Amino acid sequence: MKKFVLLASAIPSLAFAAPDRTADLRDAALKDDIAWDITEGLTTEIGQRMAGTEAEARARDWAVMKLKALGFSNVRVEPFDMPVWVRGEEKAEITLPYPQPLVLAALGNSGATPETGLEADVVYFPSFDALKAAPDSAVKDKIVFVSHAMKPTQDGSGYGHYGQARFTGPNVAAKKGAAAIVIRSIGTDSHRNPHTGNTSFEAGVAPIPAAALSNPDADNLERIFARKKAVRMKLTLTPRNIGVRPSGNVIAEVPGSDPDAGIVLIGGHLDSWDLGTGAIDDAAGVAITAAAAKRIMDSGRPRRTIRLVWFGAEEIGVLGGKAYFERHKDDNHAIAAESDFGADRIWRFETKLPDSAKAVADRLANALFPLGIVRGSGAAGGGADVGPVIRAGVSAIDLNQDGTRYFDLHHTPDDTLDKVDPKALRQNVAAWTAMLSVVADAPENISTRRP
Amino acid sequence: MKKFVLLASAIPSLAFAAPDRTADLRDAALKDDIAWDITEGLTTEIGQRMAGTEAEARARDWAVMKLKALGFSNVRVEPFDMPVWVRGEEKAEITLPYPQPLVLAALGNSGATPETGLEADVVYFPSFDALKAAPDSAVKDKIVFVSHAMKPTQDGSGYGHYGQARFTGPNVAAKKGAAAIVIRSIGTDSHRNPHTGNTSFEAGVAPIPAAALSNPDADNLERIFARKKAVRMKLTLTPRNIGVRPSGNVIAEVPGSDPDAGIVLIGGHLDSWDLGTGAIDDAAGVAITAAAAKRIMDSGRPRRTIRLVWFGAEEIGVLGGKAYFERHKDDNHAIAAESDFGADRIWRFETKLPDSAKAVADRLANALFPLGIVRGSGAAGGGADVGPVIRAGVSAIDLNQDGTRYFDLHHTPDDTLDKVDPKALRQNVAAWTAMLSVVADAPENISTRRP
Repeated sequence: MKKFVLLASAIPSLAFAAPDRTADLRDAALKDDIAWDITEGLTTEIGQRMAGTEAEARARDWAVMKLKALGFSNVRVEPFDMPVWVRGEEKAEITLPYPQPLVLAALGNSGATPETGLEADVVYFPSFDALKAAPDSAVKDKIVFVSHAMKPTQDGSGYGHYGQARFTGPNVAAKKGAAAIVIRSIGTDSHRNPHTGNTSFEAGVAPIPAAALSNPDADNLERIFARKKAVRMKLTLTPRNIGVRPSGNVIAEVPGSDPDAGIVLIGGHLDSWDLGTGAIDDAAGVAITAAAAKRIMDSGRPRRTIRLVWFGAEEIGVLGGKAYFERHKDDNHAIAAESDFGADRIWRFETKLPDSAKAVADRLANALFPLGIVRGSGAAGGGADVGPVIRAGVSAIDLNQDGTRYFDLHHTPDDTLDKVDPKALRQNVAAWTAMLSVVADAPENISTRRP
Repeated sequence: MKKFVLLASAIPSLAFAAPDRTADLRDAALKDDIAWDITEGLTTEIGQRMAGTEAEARARDWAVMKLKALGFSNVRVEPFDMPVWVRGEEKAEITLPYPQPLVLAALGNSGATPETGLEADVVYFPSFDALKAAPDSAVKDKIVFVSHAMKPTQDGSGYGHYGQARFTGPNVAAKKGAAAIVIRSIGTDSHRNPHTGNTSFEAGVAPIPAAALSNPDADNLERIFARKKAVRMKLTLTPRNIGVRPSGNVIAEVPGSDPDAGIVLIGGHLDSWDLGTGAIDDAAGVAITAAAAKRIMDSGRPRRTIRLVWFGAEEIGVLGGKAYFERHKDDNHAIAAESDFGADRIWRFETKLPDSAKAVADRLANALFPLGIVRGSGAAGGGADVGPVIRAGVSAIDLNQDGTRYFDLHHTPDDTLDKVDPKALRQNVAAWTAMLSVVADAPENISTRRP
């Protein structure tokens, strides 16, 4: 290996080092306890907080109490109404050729079987594309089983591709006349914990019973189909639509000194799926963003107002994000960012900034590199909840978390506090604190909408 | 590092190598597919096979068909009757101070709550010893929660220690007047899959409802107790005793050439808990022992008869092992060994042999060292099913599997085929094949009972 000769002039000297407030805040955040405290509190004292339910209402009360206690300003709930779907009984068994129970979970918006269950022949499709290509006659009155081959990726992009089996597979099967559908969980683990999640039926299409099998159960069903025998399944799913109920977004602010500089919008979502306790999805996200905002607040008034939103009802159609946008689309948002991809370490950042803010991105890169975070070459897109704001033209920053483990846990009963690595959580807080320090105080214009 | 000088005389020469039948059989077994075929078949075509149920009966039929197809002799079922307990509905929720659902599974022999559930204050004990030490007044009419701190160990010895909370915790709580008991799962994972297993009540003690919480749920309950608030729980468990039903042991043999040399008794258990598909507990064990016996059979008639037993009803009280012993205690058993500790690699062997067989243990050590298996300094004790035979004085060999992962999966829904590592399974078959080759053909007397 070649040796590097260091010239004396290349070694930074303490005497020349300018004070670096961002670096100091970032490094202090590596000892953060605020984010753990929020994640632990929300998962322990509330647990599951399914959108539109009484549990989500208790989570809002908890959030208001916690955000006020942390010293934020303008802490409030902005309510909205929503239709609510709740899980019922869920059971499945193979009745032929090899009788045995299966582990599954209904998808959000699933239709119900009769209370005594529904038994039908099963037809197997190795992929969503295979289901789409099938003639109606192959599917009619049958229970459709759709599998796939999702594998973990660092950026999580397999979700969009393989997720189609869940997002629209039931709608496609319903239109072809299927009696019901079971899909292989959109997940990358091999535990007997099914991955739920929302599915959508087109207007006019009657929802059919739709559920996700755990991956080991899907493996087993594939092995059974490999025996080339007729397969029958009995399925009992009794979810219900319980009508319109209240949800809401919880908002807190760190007031800035310059109202004209625009708002830095950050947050995550407060609701969770009902199977787990919503630790990585998304207690961690609301906790990371709140901890970072608190650290900026405690270090002095920033130039820009930081608005922290803990969105309601994300999981069942981004209802909180849409309600926020309807109410606040004319607010002076300078930039938006969201944490909703777990609690593992941030490995990359991307930006969508006006040309006037090129130096801001450079300062971000300098501030984040010591945390092992690289600059990506793509454009930031924000998260689901801040998506409407960003699509309306607002600048954005993404702090990308490592998603390799995320779809092991996503939407499963296994999304519990023990899956959060405290060290990675602190790295997240440090990155968000550094980002907020750079962005909230930037003297440049950072808004793409109001140059 | 010091260099070693190899003398020419220290290098074994092919010209001097005697044929080593055991080594040849062992090395061929490293490519075994028989054990995988059995493990895959039993978990796919039968799945769960709870003792005394119709599923266990189908497993016996499957076993007879498979063992005959493999070419074994004297394939038969030896039936026995047993009382059968079956799982019902199982639900739990914390009602105070932080309402939320919990994931749990009833323990075998658990009593039932009313169908509408049972709600009571919860009292927390960090260990089984703490429960034992508590006065009746601390427990009466309450739901007892017993936790513990089980950690993985290579030899699995934590099970005996921590397992007391399950084996006899419910009996202790019942005698003190508890309304019900929930224990932290006797398991070392952190997934939301509870570990079931049998519990026993003394004669005259009425069974109370008894269940195991998944470890993440037990963590959560401990965090709730750390808040120093009164905790209430609603528990619904509706298991039933369905009366006396048939079970049975499936037996197959490789006839030996010398009836006076005694029988080599090997096997595992065919039944499984109802939550998983019994892949590591104990499809792997019956598969490993059958594959090894088949390999010996195909290589020529051994001196000693190898008797392979796939025991029934092990999980709910070693009923198959006891029935076998009652029927066969006067048979000329030379030695016994069992595979019932998963499918991970074998790391050690131990023996219980008469002095006349010292050379046999030395040959075993030579045959197993190339598989990374060391000689232990303790005495072999056999597995649960062959335990009665060994305790009656029969020689024994233990091939100890690495148990570090075993209690992550043991008795959970997650005991499924994907948890079996095909390479480790083959190492097991190779070790068992080598052991059988040494033991079945040993010219020495190996029996402690009949010198």
